[in-house]
Amino acid sequence: MSHNTFGHLFRVTTWGESHGPAIGCVVDGCPPGIRFTQAEIQADLDKRRPGQSRFVTQRREPDQVKILSGVMTDEDGETLITTGTPVSMLIENVDQRSKDYSDIAKRFRPGHADYTYQAKYGLRDYRGGGRSSARETATRVAAGALARKVVPGMVVRGALVAMGEKAIDRANWDWDYVGHADNPFFTPDPASVAVFADYLDGVRKKGSSVGAVIEVVAEGVPAGLGAPVYAKLDQDICANLMSINAVKGVEIGNGFEAARITGEENADEMRMGADGKPVFLSNNSGGVLGGISTGEPIVARFAVKPTSSILTPRKSVDKDGAEVDVMTKGRHDPCVGIRAVPIAEAMLACTIADHYLRHRGQTGKQ
Amino acid sequence: MSHNTFGHLFRVTTWGESHGPAIGCVVDGCPPGIRFTQAEIQADLDKRRPGQSRFVTQRREPDQVKILSGVMTDEDGETLITTGTPVSMLIENVDQRSKDYSDIAKRFRPGHADYTYQAKYGLRDYRGGGRSSARETATRVAAGALARKVVPGMVVRGALVAMGEKAIDRANWDWDYVGHADNPFFTPDPASVAVFADYLDGVRKKGSSVGAVIEVVAEGVPAGLGAPVYAKLDQDICANLMSINAVKGVEIGNGFEAARITGEENADEMRMGADGKPVFLSNNSGGVLGGISTGEPIVARFAVKPTSSILTPRKSVDKDGAEVDVMTKGRHDPCVGIRAVPIAEAMLACTIADHYLRHRGQTGKQ
Amino acid sequence: MSHNTFGHLFRVTTWGESHGPAIGCVVDGCPPGIRFTQAEIQADLDKRRPGQSRFVTQRREPDQVKILSGVMTDEDGETLITTGTPVSMLIENVDQRSKDYSDIAKRFRPGHADYTYQAKYGLRDYRGGGRSSARETATRVAAGALARKVVPGMVVRGALVAMGEKAIDRANWDWDYVGHADNPFFTPDPASVAVFADYLDGVRKKGSSVGAVIEVVAEGVPAGLGAPVYAKLDQDICANLMSINAVKGVEIGNGFEAARITGEENADEMRMGADGKPVFLSNNSGGVLGGISTGEPIVARFAVKPTSSILTPRKSVDKDGAEVDVMTKGRHDPCVGIRAVPIAEAMLACTIADHYLRHRGQTGKQ
Amino acid sequence: MSHNTFGHLFRVTTWGESHGPAIGCVVDGCPPGIRFTQAEIQADLDKRRPGQSRFVTQRREPDQVKILSGVMTDEDGETLITTGTPVSMLIENVDQRSKDYSDIAKRFRPGHADYTYQAKYGLRDYRGGGRSSARETATRVAAGALARKVVPGMVVRGALVAMGEKAIDRANWDWDYVGHADNPFFTPDPASVAVFADYLDGVRKKGSSVGAVIEVVAEGVPAGLGAPVYAKLDQDICANLMSINAVKGVEIGNGFEAARITGEENADEMRMGADGKPVFLSNNSGGVLGGISTGEPIVARFAVKPTSSILTPRKSVDKDGAEVDVMTKGRHDPCVGIRAVPIAEAMLACTIADHYLRHRGQTGKQ
Repeated sequence: MSHNTFGHLFRVTTWGESHGPAIGCVVDGCPPGIRFTQAEIQADLDKRRPGQSRFVTQRREPDQVKILSGVMTDEDGETLITTGTPVSMLIENVDQRSKDYSDIAKRFRPGHADYTYQAKYGLRDYRGGGRSSARETATRVAAGALARKVVPGMVVRGALVAMGEKAIDRANWDWDYVGHADNPFFTPDPASVAVFADYLDGVRKKGSSVGAVIEVVAEGVPAGLGAPVYAKLDQDICANLMSINAVKGVEIGNGFEAARITGEENADEMRMGADGKPVFLSNNSGGVLGGISTGEPIVARFAVKPTSSILTPRKSVDKDGAEVDVMTKGRHDPCVGIRAVPIAEAMLACTIADHYLRHRGQTGKQ
Repeated sequence: MSHNTFGHLFRVTTWGESHGPAIGCVVDGCPPGIRFTQAEIQADLDKRRPGQSRFVTQRREPDQVKILSGVMTDEDGETLITTGTPVSMLIENVDQRSKDYSDIAKRFRPGHADYTYQAKYGLRDYRGGGRSSARETATRVAAGALARKVVPGMVVRGALVAMGEKAIDRANWDWDYVGHADNPFFTPDPASVAVFADYLDGVRKKGSSVGAVIEVVAEGVPAGLGAPVYAKLDQDICANLMSINAVKGVEIGNGFEAARITGEENADEMRMGADGKPVFLSNNSGGVLGGISTGEPIVARFAVKPTSSILTPRKSVDKDGAEVDVMTKGRHDPCVGIRAVPIAEAMLACTIADHYLRHRGQTGKQ
Repeated sequence: MSHNTFGHLFRVTTWGESHGPAIGCVVDGCPPGIRFTQAEIQADLDKRRPGQSRFVTQRREPDQVKILSGVMTDEDGETLITTGTPVSMLIENVDQRSKDYSDIAKRFRPGHADYTYQAKYGLRDYRGGGRSSARETATRVAAGALARKVVPGMVVRGALVAMGEKAIDRANWDWDYVGHADNPFFTPDPASVAVFADYLDGVRKKGSSVGAVIEVVAEGVPAGLGAPVYAKLDQDICANLMSINAVKGVEIGNGFEAARITGEENADEMRMGADGKPVFLSNNSGGVLGGISTGEPIVARFAVKPTSSILTPRKSVDKDGAEVDVMTKGRHDPCVGIRAVPIAEAMLACTIADHYLRHRGQTGKQ
Repeated sequence: MSHNTFGHLFRVTTWGESHGPAIGCVVDGCPPGIRFTQAEIQADLDKRRPGQSRFVTQRREPDQVKILSGVMTDEDGETLITTGTPVSMLIENVDQRSKDYSDIAKRFRPGHADYTYQAKYGLRDYRGGGRSSARETATRVAAGALARKVVPGMVVRGALVAMGEKAIDRANWDWDYVGHADNPFFTPDPASVAVFADYLDGVRKKGSSVGAVIEVVAEGVPAGLGAPVYAKLDQDICANLMSINAVKGVEIGNGFEAARITGEENADEMRMGADGKPVFLSNNSGGVLGGISTGEPIVARFAVKPTSSILTPRKSVDKDGAEVDVMTKGRHDPCVGIRAVPIAEAMLACTIADHYLRHRGQTGKQ
């Protein structure tokens, strides 16, 4: 029910704004006995961290996670072991530039949540976007790092597959390349880097912005997770991806393409595999049939809109009803979709971890 | 948490399979004092009902709703008034043809949830698809008819905008035409009827099937509903639309198109309206910014896959691990997306009603 | 969250009023593969059913349960097997005497929920107490009959231990006697029957009423169910017992007595049992330490107030603010606590079943 | 659902153990625009803080609360205003004496949750009781300080009414005396202080411990909060009081006494008050009828068991199955019930705040 919590058995509550002292999350329901290190959490956080290339905001945040509860330290002094009680993680806000907000304190920035916050709450913390700040997503990544450990054998990865008018060539897909040091875009297609860089430089220099499409894949997910009606695995995946800032659409498997083809083309056929288990001959379903996982890779994609923080003045109004022009100065990402990749991985991992525990609860299956 | 419930304050629990004696829903949390008639609920149910044209399954179900609790009858003997306690609605299953299920009892139909049910539950009621039967959606429509009454002034409508390779011409959009007696497709474009009819006749005669894209719109939704992070209005709308059978993708506003354009093109500008209230000059956002409603129409679209019940034999396996070919006989819709229109309207109405109550709870705003 | 649902993984939603056509419940989250018969459900319902002695209300309701969904029938044609989808159960209201309600339509009966319903909802279905009718509890008993099957080896029993000023002699405790045909009170003390009968005849003849104390015990509950803080097993047991009509207090183990004694007297000591497992030398804790089950019997007690439906006129007011005297005519129980025994067993069984699934979900332990 | 969260619309999640770096809570769903100061939160925390008399544990914790999110600072630089987003509060653990835990690392202390933690989680953080430490309750008090502001005009107070074999004289009840500097017991009866002091000194010197009964009262609660069946106001109050460490029983209004009296004695009569509103002539119901508030003061009582940390050796077993004797050294309260008073006030305030928002959500009433 909570407005700031997602998940049911693996349950993540996040808190904090970009301009307060800290942000954080509480992960409740984590199974006891999960072993991890702070360095593993930090590694995921570092992937999301801004300031690592000219294509993302230059806000400098070390994003050092502190783990405040819910773990014991193993005898090696490093490995942490979950106790089954809530894991509280906190990240301090460091780079809060003292900035003059007077020009946006009263003005509603087009495309941002300024007007809607005011409409909802009757007041608004105009500094840094409040809960809608991209900083909040760091806490999701921390939670996701823990979620990855919950489902034995699960591997969750993501990649950027399109940016504005440019898209990757799927024939070049190389998962290993996504995290490569020379790849500032999380693209799986080495040939796309130069194209994206050139394109985004143009966007950035104009003070403009552009959207993106991200694909996330979870392998090693056992068949049977999810439920037929209102706890569909794909439904919860889509909901959690939609909860990421600026996401405007989500699809599973072949997604919107499924609307254009026939039943013969769409349904994935089955045969017996070498190991005596059923295998699917294709994966149009994206690993989910009737809301329940098939054992095939879970595949989802989502569209991120271009940030509305741009240099071109735009028509708007202010709190007092005056018509104004708004131009967003300051540090912003020309393509916020890039950093959505590790966030989406985290949301996918959390969703599947939750369903893994729910399935185990109802059926007793491990 | 429940696998068969959606919503938080306006909360709908559904139950039943197509081959049991009845299906039904319990609507909990409905405000007291809502006035409606059984005929209004029935009218919505009749829109979803199969057997009304050659383009939908010929299963004949009267779908007569019985209201079992949660209402008082007004002095006119007809108007029902909610008491604030749970409204239980029941629909009997009438047309359960005694059918020979022996050929599918053990076989997993490709593209259906047969294999995943077996993987999840370890057993499977093979008659009629269990909870995944489209019959379940009748109960959603009943709940949605009540939800429409919760938000004063709200109007929720839906239309089919594409079928397989064919799409409407949005320039012809006419809401009044959607419910027209000569329009078996819920299309808003009169010119599309002949095209769709011809196309779908071809599909039907081949024993094939085809997908569709549906658009739903809610007007009269006050600004301020939703929340910034994990209770985004658009997130919950997408989740609830994704919970409809066979839906593979969902988008809000301009959706996936947003990934392809720039911040200048995408952000909706604002001006003061004649009535002294802010107005948006466009609605790319689909009526939601930062997860909170803007007061503009809420616009969502989703893709429905073609049903996997087709006459062409398809490769599959059975419960015992034998490789088999499966061909689906029986009554099926060549385009299940058509009947998704009233279902989607219901889901949109329920989602917004829930958020209306949640917003009122937290902020006291009406 | 729902006002008419309890439980999280084993989740029960009830609906219906005593003067509508039916009442019912939906049990969601039940594990698949649970085997039971309709006769077993009915047997529990028959225990709660009114009209079986002169000490309970003479309303005659057959309370025949119909199982509408969520089960398959086994080959014996009788055994039902849960499929893992929602089990909907319905009980028709038969004995709705056409009664003249005009004298209570506007008057608030003291001790009843009439005034508070009006204050909450702004309207009130004055026929039969609405949701506060004891009839609602029949649906809990049906759900509880299923819950008993969820935890392997669990046995849940209850008994009346005090009625007004009279109490049983615990030295005479005989579980087998509780369900004896000559025992209209669910008392475990054979010697108490004559005492209670005499006492209650006096109460009944005066048109008065009296309260009771009920004890419920669950044996065979594995150690480890519950959680340390806000999902304490004893907390949820107390909450669910408090949800029964007219309950004013609940205690676990030695309960309020614990406040009067010392730490030496109160804490249960432990030794190793013959089977190599720890055993407790006493059970003051009532089978719960730190919110988690110990493996000892779970023991809870609760106080039921005397019904406020009595023949003596009492001062009250009506909807229009007039001061009135109210006397309750009609069929009523002189001691509503008697029928609370099977209801409390059901609530205890449901609570433990829910925690059994939650524990399994988080820890994987069976 | 969460094991570490309570409330639905006013929702409190707590985290932390006594031996980690900090404890804290996240309050989600708080209405926007609530004005408070950090000093107000601190004042409530100071009431619960140990080390303030010889009758409570000598652990010295400053319990300084830090407010990390969800608020704006008003122009006075001191008043905080809730923004409607989650309020995260953190309290550092300061007095973590480096202690030798080797003697309890493997031994299960009788009456404590040691054995049950091990049974549940398969591992156990033996330092300081983990989540079952009384320190966790500081975070509830912080949340409760905020909850007090949510319901306009509500005043929540508590008092100790019995300690072991000694009880107050209710005729001496003086709310003002409860917080008096010379009153280390939160007793409302000035004459009881000497009695309790003498009694508890005896208990303390023997290394023993004793239980207590606490009463909490909420005045100014509007009629209409709660619901008839599974969201009864008294049910949720009892559940939340039962969630406090060491509580073994809870009652509302006249509680267990109601089981001993007749309907004539028990039901509260009504008349019209001078202000034209109904008044109750007594309050046996404790301010709740049929699960819904009457407008009278809400009155609840609960029993706290004596702490099991005592100097007398007690029989137990250890993790390896050896039979051992356990004696608890270290800092402990001879009567943990004393400090339960501010905790119970907090839980009562949070429960009512939650129901206030839920009622407003469903009915629109303020």
